[in-house]
Amino acid sequence: MPQKPLIFITNDDGFQARGIRLLEKILQPLGDIVVVAPLVEQSGKSHAITGGKPLRLECLTKRDGFEEYALEGTPVDCVKMAFDKVLDRKPDFLFAGINHGANTSINTIYSGTMGAVTEGCSEGVPSVGFSLCDNDKEASLNECEAVVEMIAKRVVENGLPDGVCLNVNFPVGTIKGVKVGHQAKGYWREDFTSSEKDGERSIFWLGGEYYCTDESPLADWRIVENGYASIVPMQVDFTAYKAMQRIREIFE
Amino acid sequence: MPQKPLIFITNDDGFQARGIRLLEKILQPLGDIVVVAPLVEQSGKSHAITGGKPLRLECLTKRDGFEEYALEGTPVDCVKMAFDKVLDRKPDFLFAGINHGANTSINTIYSGTMGAVTEGCSEGVPSVGFSLCDNDKEASLNECEAVVEMIAKRVVENGLPDGVCLNVNFPVGTIKGVKVGHQAKGYWREDFTSSEKDGERSIFWLGGEYYCTDESPLADWRIVENGYASIVPMQVDFTAYKAMQRIREIFE
Repeated sequence: MPQKPLIFITNDDGFQARGIRLLEKILQPLGDIVVVAPLVEQSGKSHAITGGKPLRLECLTKRDGFEEYALEGTPVDCVKMAFDKVLDRKPDFLFAGINHGANTSINTIYSGTMGAVTEGCSEGVPSVGFSLCDNDKEASLNECEAVVEMIAKRVVENGLPDGVCLNVNFPVGTIKGVKVGHQAKGYWREDFTSSEKDGERSIFWLGGEYYCTDESPLADWRIVENGYASIVPMQVDFTAYKAMQRIREIFE
Repeated sequence: MPQKPLIFITNDDGFQARGIRLLEKILQPLGDIVVVAPLVEQSGKSHAITGGKPLRLECLTKRDGFEEYALEGTPVDCVKMAFDKVLDRKPDFLFAGINHGANTSINTIYSGTMGAVTEGCSEGVPSVGFSLCDNDKEASLNECEAVVEMIAKRVVENGLPDGVCLNVNFPVGTIKGVKVGHQAKGYWREDFTSSEKDGERSIFWLGGEYYCTDESPLADWRIVENGYASIVPMQVDFTAYKAMQRIREIFE
């Protein structure tokens, strides 16, 4: 009998989040599962890594075909730790999420979930991040289940192109289907709220509103707005090849 | 007399780092300067943002044409805070660094300096990050000075293409010239070191070694290795457009 696929799971909401529990349940029939997830929530941690501070790793469960660990670190720390110290071989697949909150458009760059996914991709592992576009931690994940299962099965069957990972986002409520698209153009207009001063220092809390400036129906934010799950292929090479010639003219 | 350019400066090594002091000195003749830099070092913080925790901002210097603030937050927090609460208009340019340590290849994705630069770019501001490929905090920055000045002047004169920012890295020692290139393919092989356990938890410290798998002489890591400063145009759209058709075949 051939070896079962080794599936690595992480997230940024922490090992106790409902989203990762559901993901574990969906993926268990597809292979052997190892989970290394943050001990505490790491939303907005992007690709951050922890240097100069110790990382504490605790084994929570270890049985045949299923292991679970909590790490006091970021999602990318979880991936690096798993690949170096927890897994006995490079995993066949990495799945992250299901994240509570949208990772469409520019949110991709802030997302700890997608940080873990791009880390997996940079290490040559087919990697997928799932997010539900609802910030309510109690939001129902029922609608996502069948689509996560379909996507995971197809990734396990087909793999992914070299250097490409997937960013999948689900709408709230009924999912009409899936559409492959691109990262929507958009930005946050910041609106920090302030509270009383702390001596010489002013105190602020991060806030703001997202603006989508991309009218394409294949912009991920629009796909989700229209009730479909968006699938965006992403890469870890951020070079703007189209601008290369112009940049040469200016600087060389 | 036309209004002077408004130049925003930040970094990830903190407001007291030697690199940002030199950058301030080089850029002062080019415009009005506002600095918002992290209170403490934020290396490896990528595009991380701080939610659910207060951000403390302190004004350190305020005189005609030069303002300096320290923020208890990440480099991206510094940019967002500056754009919302510190600057009286959107800046004309954003410069970050001079970072102590390489931000070539895959290091681009972990870098707090480049996190700030892509944040500026996402908000429509021509943005440039400078890094010296030497982790020694005492390394000489003298060689960088003339090249930083040349690049900054050309950016102020020419602007940058829409949605494109620059990642500039300097070799150690003499700089033979500048070359425009791409983000090198490469990865880190993790090698965590462990220390004694803390109860049920194992304690580790992040470590590892970088491997460049890109033999192109225009890979940024190779450009720097050959003694030139590398200039890589970067974008904030991480979509792998080349893979779109294949991904449609698998999932739609």
